This record gives sequence, structure tokens and C-alpha cells, in this order.
Amino acid sequence: MTDVAIIGSGPAGLSAAVNARARGASAVVYGRDPATSALYRAPALLNHLGAGGRPGGELLREYIAEAEAAGVAFERGRVSQIITGGVSFGIIMGSEFFQAKTVVIASGGGAAKTVPGEERFVGKGVSYCATCDGALYRGRDVAIVAETDEAREDAELLARMCRRVYYVDKIGKGLPGERSNVEFVPGDVSGVSGGEYVEKVEVGSSQIAVDAVFFIRPVVPVSGFIFGLAVDPSGAIAVGRSMETSIPGVFACGDAAGKPYQLSKAIGEGLVAGQSAARYNSV
Amino acid sequence: MTDVAIIGSGPAGLSAAVNARARGASAVVYGRDPATSALYRAPALLNHLGAGGRPGGELLREYIAEAEAAGVAFERGRVSQIITGGVSFGIIMGSEFFQAKTVVIASGGGAAKTVPGEERFVGKGVSYCATCDGALYRGRDVAIVAETDEAREDAELLARMCRRVYYVDKIGKGLPGERSNVEFVPGDVSGVSGGEYVEKVEVGSSQIAVDAVFFIRPVVPVSGFIFGLAVDPSGAIAVGRSMETSIPGVFACGDAAGKPYQLSKAIGEGLVAGQSAARYNSV
Repeated sequence: MTDVAIIGSGPAGLSAAVNARARGASAVVYGRDPATSALYRAPALLNHLGAGGRPGGELLREYIAEAEAAGVAFERGRVSQIITGGVSFGIIMGSEFFQAKTVVIASGGGAAKTVPGEERFVGKGVSYCATCDGALYRGRDVAIVAETDEAREDAELLARMCRRVYYVDKIGKGLPGERSNVEFVPGDVSGVSGGEYVEKVEVGSSQIAVDAVFFIRPVVPVSGFIFGLAVDPSGAIAVGRSMETSIPGVFACGDAAGKPYQLSKAIGEGLVAGQSAARYNSV
Repeated sequence: MTDVAIIGSGPAGLSAAVNARARGASAVVYGRDPATSALYRAPALLNHLGAGGRPGGELLREYIAEAEAAGVAFERGRVSQIITGGVSFGIIMGSEFFQAKTVVIASGGGAAKTVPGEERFVGKGVSYCATCDGALYRGRDVAIVAETDEAREDAELLARMCRRVYYVDKIGKGLPGERSNVEFVPGDVSGVSGGEYVEKVEVGSSQIAVDAVFFIRPVVPVSGFIFGLAVDPSGAIAVGRSMETSIPGVFACGDAAGKPYQLSKAIGEGLVAGQSAARYNSV
């Protein structure tokens, strides 16, 4: 079992991992391609001491090399769920399951960008992982909201199992193959509604009857990630001075812990979260 | 009047200054020689992403150059007091007085290392600045606790004005000249006592009758620095997520805002404090 599981491979996560290692803890970073980090796309870092205006991608590659040299392990993929157990945590990534003693959430910003109704129906028709939950809707009608490239494969998967797949294409890339039961829906999702379970998704001015909505996003909203985690009024994870969250053993840092979305803050909070997680393990 | 006055020239202060400038605010760093920064003495930075194990002195010089390039101004000296006014703040440094709209305290750690009784008598016999307060004790007996080189000059100054000067030499350098009214006292100060005003200083097992005790330290304790600033149980300045303190317009960051005393945290909190101060000004 890993001592410290870090969710997110941006600068906050890497700083947490390096500092957990510096305190003698084992550390695994679970995250997508580094190119998905907000830092990767920054053309020039002018307000982070020591960065000297260099491009974000170059800094990120340097940080990853430092983390690897420090003995940090990496698991590439998209974490869909964290299960809070009694003495340890479970991390679900695609079809794989990992265990850790503590968790540091460094999954980036945008956590608050949910649509009305979305949070209410998490686990009741709203899903962030077609691989995990697709089979629950075999023979039913579903919608998929495509915000990343992974959504194209997820749509293929759903099309094989579900009766009808409404595809809201926010990345404008279409689908790899052609399937008669996939319908492209123009516009953006403005809400999810229903009774106890999802019944409808609103796209533009139209309402579509579905049993599930799959949001395939670069960042899974915190509310869909881990049950019972307190957020602040902005929707960011609520943290204290040690980067502790409302769940003992879970820490958060960087953009996931709120604004400002800046490299210096991400690295600083990552250090504190990594040290706090390592200390939590040793107590 | 400066928009943002930063007290302290270490990495937290420099990060605050660069980021206040990035938001269009004017920024002045008030601080002692950079060589007094804890960073300067670090032999190799292994757990700050991007530092790559380089020595602290080299990083600090780089940060100072970045701050200068960003248009940050510097005032070299030791700040002894910050005066909280109605719409602005006053900064006393030696015999100079400066004004600013907001203040960022980045004066480093060790803020809690006071001796028993010290905080109670601040302004009532306990002083951190011989230039400022020496004349109040003309013809009286005083003690001076020498923790930095500046104390040697301060003792000379006090010897010219006071009847008797008890010199507690914690740096082991003696005095530049010789004065018949200066008495060297071996040992360390263990307490300050009195009624309404200071009456005695305890050094080792002996009690010496004095009207004032001058503590000449690398860092002035927060309690002696600025009146009414709330501290946390560890003695560090209490801050919120925007690095705001209990006094509107005053922000804190880095070691002054508590542990861990680490470069990544200093730079991260500096950024937040600098941005918060710049925003406070523009509201």
C-alpha cells in the first residue's frame, strides 16, 4: 500500500510527491498526460521567482524529472473515484484499483464548473467515467458531454452497450467511427433534471430524455470525486493551514484548493500537503 | 506613498513584491542585508521544485535580480515599528519614516522566540531599537541583548546617553571601543520583570535592576512590531486563505505566518499576499 497517493500530475501534485518522499514516505502520482496541466500551456512564467520567464512546458518537464529522481512513482490515467475506507483509501482509475494510506488532491481548478443539477445526481445518473458506469445503462438512452479526447472512445464504448447515445461535442472533433445509434447534439449542456434519478438533460433550448449523462472532462469535479469533502463558497476544496480537508487523511493543494491559480501557490501548497500527509502516516 | 510595503527581503517578501508589481502596484521591500535570510544559509535546495539542489545564496541573488527587473524598490535597514493609521500605515526604520497603503509582513521566523515577560513590557521598557528609544532612558540604567552585529553600535550609542549599560553578548564579538559604563554580563536573558514598567532583567541566575531592555535581534518579534496583530497558538501571525491578518490592509506570508519554514511555502504565500495587497489597494 502506498503511503501517499497524489491525485494530479501538475506542479502542486509534483511538489507534494517530492516532499512526501523527502520525509521518507512512498508516493505515487495518479494523473493524466502532463500536457493536460494548466502549467503546460503557459507561454512564459513571469511571476514565479526563479522561473525567469521560461515556458510552462519546459518547467513541467524539469519538475517531472526532479520527481522521478526523488523516487516518485507515476500511474497514468484518469482517476474517477476515491473511496474513503476506515484505515485506508481506494483509488479507482479506469479498471484499476489502488490503495493508499493518505490522499493528496491536486487535481487542478475548474472544480466548480458544474451545470445546474449535476451535483445532485452524482451516482444517480451523472457519471464521469464510461468505463466504470457504462454497463449500468445497457439498453438505455444516455448522453455524453465530450470535453476531452477521451470522450471519443468513451462514446464508442457507450454506443456498443446503450440504445441511444446523444453526443454533445464540445471539442469539435467528431467520432472515430460511425454508429447509427449516436446522435450529435449541437449546443452546450445547461442542466440535468429528474426525480430521484436523472430523467432529462437540457442542451441549448431542448430537453432530451435520458437515464444517464456522462461528463468527460479534463478535471472531475471534486463533488463527484470523493464523497463528503467540504468545499468553500467558490466550490474549491476547503483547507486549513496544513492543507488538511474535512476528511482526516485527505489533503488538498494547488488550484483544487482555490484561487489564485498560480504556479508559486501550487508549489508552496504542494509542499505543505506532502509534508502533512507524510506526517499523518508516521503518527 | 507606496502601494505595498513589504517588510522582509527573503523569498516570501520578494515573491510578494514581484506579484504586487505584476498587478500594477508600487512595491518597496524594507529589509536587512539579504545574507540575513534563512535561505541565504541553505547549502542546497533539494525539495523546492525547480531549484535542482542549488545553494540558497545563489537562488536569493537570482530572486533579487528578478525583483529589481520587475521594478521593486529596496530600502535597506531594520524596521522597528509599523504604525497602523486610519487610511495608511507608517513604517519606522532607524530614523526614517515611510508611508504605505498596505503592508505585507514577510519578516521570517523566530517570531515566537521571546523571553518570559518580554511581550508584556513592549513599549514599557522593552525596546527593539536603540536609535528610536535610547533617548527615553537618558541617565538611566539599561540592558542590551546583542544577537546581531548592529547591537555593538547600539551599545555605543546607549553608553553615550545612559548611566550604565549591561551588555549581554550573545554574538561573542565584544565592543568596538571601550567604555567605563558598559558592563559585560555572561549568560543568557531568561526573563523581564517589573510592575507597570520594566524593573529587572534576569540573566542566568542573577537579577539586574534596569529601566529598559533593548533586544537587538535579527527578527523583531511580531508582538513588538505592530500593535494588535493576532497570532496563532505557535506565536506565528494568524492568516486566512488570502494571507490576510487580523488588521485590514496588513497581510503576512512565509515563515512569519508559521511552519513549515520552507522555500516553496514562502514563495507561494508571498504570491498570494502580494496579489491580495494589490487588490486591497484597488478596491
